[in-house]
Amino acid sequence: MEIQEIQLRELDAQAFIKDKTEEIAGMVADGQAVNALSGGVDSSVVTMLAHRALGERLKTYFIENGLMREGEPQRVVEIFAALGVPVEIVDARKKFFNALKGLTDPEEKREKGITQVFYKDVFGKLVKDSGAKFLLQGTNYTDVEETLAGVKRQHNILAQLGIDTEKAFGYKVIEPIIELRKPAVREVGKVLGLPEEIYARPPFPGPALCARVIGEVTPERVALVRAATAIVEAELAGSGAFQYMAILHRDKVTGIRDGKRDYGHQIEVRCWESTDAVTGEPTELPFATLRKLAERISGEVPGVVSVTYNVTAKPPSCIEAV
Amino acid sequence: MEIQEIQLRELDAQAFIKDKTEEIAGMVADGQAVNALSGGVDSSVVTMLAHRALGERLKTYFIENGLMREGEPQRVVEIFAALGVPVEIVDARKKFFNALKGLTDPEEKREKGITQVFYKDVFGKLVKDSGAKFLLQGTNYTDVEETLAGVKRQHNILAQLGIDTEKAFGYKVIEPIIELRKPAVREVGKVLGLPEEIYARPPFPGPALCARVIGEVTPERVALVRAATAIVEAELAGSGAFQYMAILHRDKVTGIRDGKRDYGHQIEVRCWESTDAVTGEPTELPFATLRKLAERISGEVPGVVSVTYNVTAKPPSCIEAV
Repeated sequence: MEIQEIQLRELDAQAFIKDKTEEIAGMVADGQAVNALSGGVDSSVVTMLAHRALGERLKTYFIENGLMREGEPQRVVEIFAALGVPVEIVDARKKFFNALKGLTDPEEKREKGITQVFYKDVFGKLVKDSGAKFLLQGTNYTDVEETLAGVKRQHNILAQLGIDTEKAFGYKVIEPIIELRKPAVREVGKVLGLPEEIYARPPFPGPALCARVIGEVTPERVALVRAATAIVEAELAGSGAFQYMAILHRDKVTGIRDGKRDYGHQIEVRCWESTDAVTGEPTELPFATLRKLAERISGEVPGVVSVTYNVTAKPPSCIEAV
Repeated sequence: MEIQEIQLRELDAQAFIKDKTEEIAGMVADGQAVNALSGGVDSSVVTMLAHRALGERLKTYFIENGLMREGEPQRVVEIFAALGVPVEIVDARKKFFNALKGLTDPEEKREKGITQVFYKDVFGKLVKDSGAKFLLQGTNYTDVEETLAGVKRQHNILAQLGIDTEKAFGYKVIEPIIELRKPAVREVGKVLGLPEEIYARPPFPGPALCARVIGEVTPERVALVRAATAIVEAELAGSGAFQYMAILHRDKVTGIRDGKRDYGHQIEVRCWESTDAVTGEPTELPFATLRKLAERISGEVPGVVSVTYNVTAKPPSCIEAV
């Protein structure tokens, strides 16, 4: 089945919401469904659509994989509670960090460290325990395109890769926003009544901070990039950019602190102008902003002696480094 | 013996040249001396001082270590030939690359890959063959300070570390510009009649492109950073900055080329405002210049998918990454 994009200019959000709600209700019938909410636009919109379709027959989990941003799990639960959608936090930090141990290749990290743990160990079990036969997912049109093009294996795109999810993992995947790119997803989110904090939120990758750590992903290294991410998000919140991020390099570089050599970490900052993540340009940030980012990150994140700013477009860069 | 700095404002270049020329002539007496010329300001000034003091009794070598910039050995020999100073190119590329094989730690690269090879294998032999008992070196005051402070072990500062060079390597080291920082060295170079291309040249580290490669230094990786360096130097020649450089990271990052995933190299560009390399600020380059650098480097250097710009001051960064 070839998937056709619904472009923003042809999108009737009300009609889309009605269609998808009916479609989900029809597929699940009187069964149960589960979904994982990360707090990103995609999974938030899917949660709202499924909640409208299924009400109490939807069970929404927030998987705490240890790779989320500062305060993220609590904040997301709070926002959805205010919308009348109950969300359960599942602490799976140990499972993810155990699986990520020793992995350095980006594809291996995504596949063995995230995808397999997420679907098999964590989500497979939750679905089985819940008795649900349906999993809702926030796969979007850009994920489909990039996966088919062989650019990057998305963590949430099993069906597109020819994997029979029912056979492999014991449940069926429903992907209600697979025809939409990000701007259309945001529009649907807005019409669904999500707060601006959610529908206008810069994209954040499925593998979360795992995608922001080059080399091995350990709790210590995630803590470093989490602290840098909080600074970048605070400083660039008003930039109007499509997405901004901090990346912890594996390479160490020579620095100097208190007059002594300090062989320390490097953090790369990226800030993107883009509409759909398919192409992107680095944002022309004021130099004072870049200097402030460097001062704060090297001053506040332990061991960081160097901060760089990406100046390459996509292509040939990608939005994320990992 | 404690070394006292001669600051630029108190420097009488003519008197300094006269003093140092007499000092060198007095030390070497009727003996022979050798020196290694890299083409940087420091070793160029030392070459001119020693040439004035010793004439034909000075033997100047350009050690081709395989780590130099594009066309550098030929250009340096040409410039000094025009000044009446004969320079012999010594091809030691294999020795350096063999010693650098498998080394990734910056200190090990400097010590085992550069210092030991330079002094023992290459220069020790040249001195013995020449019968000279004196080696002239371009150690400057900043090198002394940083080495004593434990920031970085300079490749040319054995005596300061308490190593008896006569016992360890068989010859005596003369360091005529050890009391000067860079601006004073440039002034002396100008008065000595060196062309502006040399005396106003941005600093370039002793270990050359070895200092610009994070991780293992191989001929292939040096070729990549050499090509990126040529682009950075061409684009930033008119910037008026103190120093600018390209650094090849060991970390690879995800890129995209012709619609396919390309897991490729990252080049970091640094451009410094500084007077003496003790402290430094990143230069506020026009964003269009940064974008052009990224486009040229990712377009012209094979396998590069990402280019970043350093935005951190020294401290806590250092001028060089390695």
